[in-house]
Amino acid sequence: MRFDIVTLFPEFFDSPLSVGLMAKALDRGIAEVHFTNPRSFTTDKHHRVDDEPYGGGVGMLMKPDPIFAAVEALPSLSPREIIAVTPQGEKLTQTLLQSLAHQMAQCVIICGHYEGIDERVMEHLATREISMGDYVLTCGEIPALALLNGIVRLLPGTVGKVASLREDSFQDGLLDYPHYTRPAVFRGWAVPEVLRSGHHGAIAQWRQQQQRQRTQTRRPDLYQAWLRRQEETSAAEEGREC
Amino acid sequence: MRFDIVTLFPEFFDSPLSVGLMAKALDRGIAEVHFTNPRSFTTDKHHRVDDEPYGGGVGMLMKPDPIFAAVEALPSLSPREIIAVTPQGEKLTQTLLQSLAHQMAQCVIICGHYEGIDERVMEHLATREISMGDYVLTCGEIPALALLNGIVRLLPGTVGKVASLREDSFQDGLLDYPHYTRPAVFRGWAVPEVLRSGHHGAIAQWRQQQQRQRTQTRRPDLYQAWLRRQEETSAAEEGREC
Repeated sequence: MRFDIVTLFPEFFDSPLSVGLMAKALDRGIAEVHFTNPRSFTTDKHHRVDDEPYGGGVGMLMKPDPIFAAVEALPSLSPREIIAVTPQGEKLTQTLLQSLAHQMAQCVIICGHYEGIDERVMEHLATREISMGDYVLTCGEIPALALLNGIVRLLPGTVGKVASLREDSFQDGLLDYPHYTRPAVFRGWAVPEVLRSGHHGAIAQWRQQQQRQRTQTRRPDLYQAWLRRQEETSAAEEGREC
Repeated sequence: MRFDIVTLFPEFFDSPLSVGLMAKALDRGIAEVHFTNPRSFTTDKHHRVDDEPYGGGVGMLMKPDPIFAAVEALPSLSPREIIAVTPQGEKLTQTLLQSLAHQMAQCVIICGHYEGIDERVMEHLATREISMGDYVLTCGEIPALALLNGIVRLLPGTVGKVASLREDSFQDGLLDYPHYTRPAVFRGWAVPEVLRSGHHGAIAQWRQQQQRQRTQTRRPDLYQAWLRRQEETSAAEEGREC
């Protein structure tokens, strides 16, 4: 998959893309990441990328023209999404990451800066607005990095074993179960007996029960959605039996 | 504020902390960021930080002992939080960022890797588990960067004008209104007339109405919560009038 990051600070990405699994995935050609700087597409002698907001208010906004020009100068693969990362967008979920990873040939990611981006970029250029969550950061580069990482992680070859992806948090709509490794007893805190029993059925059952229990306690919203899906599935199965 | 990032890949943070507002904030001493690598706290000759999961399953887990030792070797300021970033944690919100920014002297952030971290770290060392959202990344370094950025942004002096922070998305529980800058007409798309009217009352009204409308359309969950708060406020005010 091809990624194009539209950013005023391409150097931001140097070290995050040079370490760990992401570096390996890019080395292996699982994805390619290109950077394009709107500043290179300004036409005035001061190379201005920002200006004051109409209607007043503090801070500067990113001008629309250099962003349009930057995106329009990119090669275009099909299908592609042009994504603006903004707290106003739809919330990023694992399902959305999966659909981008499995369906897109190219993702263009526009990183905001200053107080925000001229709305005409979202109205007439971006095909999608995505939010990392209900919080505010100084720049879109961190969400762009999260999006890139979350998508590349799902591409074949990035994570060693596909089974790892099947056991992801949220894969079945529940939180993950607790994990334990050696030592068996650390400072008096023992790994739960069942995990050391070698009894695969009991282990699977314990893990499922942990998933349900911690999702119900910590994230009643996810738990209710999971319950509804379970009920729908059983209803559908009963329907087939009739 | 002091940040300690507990990470197997301190070099990940090199370039993100060297550009933009974050670099300036760290230069000015608004916050200081230290890195500590659990690998330096291993006691075996292979410096192992990971091991296989009890009960079976794919992938490796981060061992508890080097993480405990790394955190226990840090200077301790009060009050502090020891935060594990994991999809199983409470969801990060602007309110949570504010409480960390305004109440903490130190944030220790533990970055997970591989399939996860031994649960005893969360049970007996971390004071808090925080999730960036319902999606999975290859590493905790990106969420750590988001947390660091979101907190430092709220510290006095990082963002030039405090008014910028007062106008944040989510500050009043609603999404932000659309922003426009020059040119007034770009490719035939005009900036809304009201924003060019110079009529401050009408502009404020338009912006509020846009905030309510887009929150209602895009994020009914936030909108319902906002409505409930509005009703509670009016009820409280009526109570006072009696």
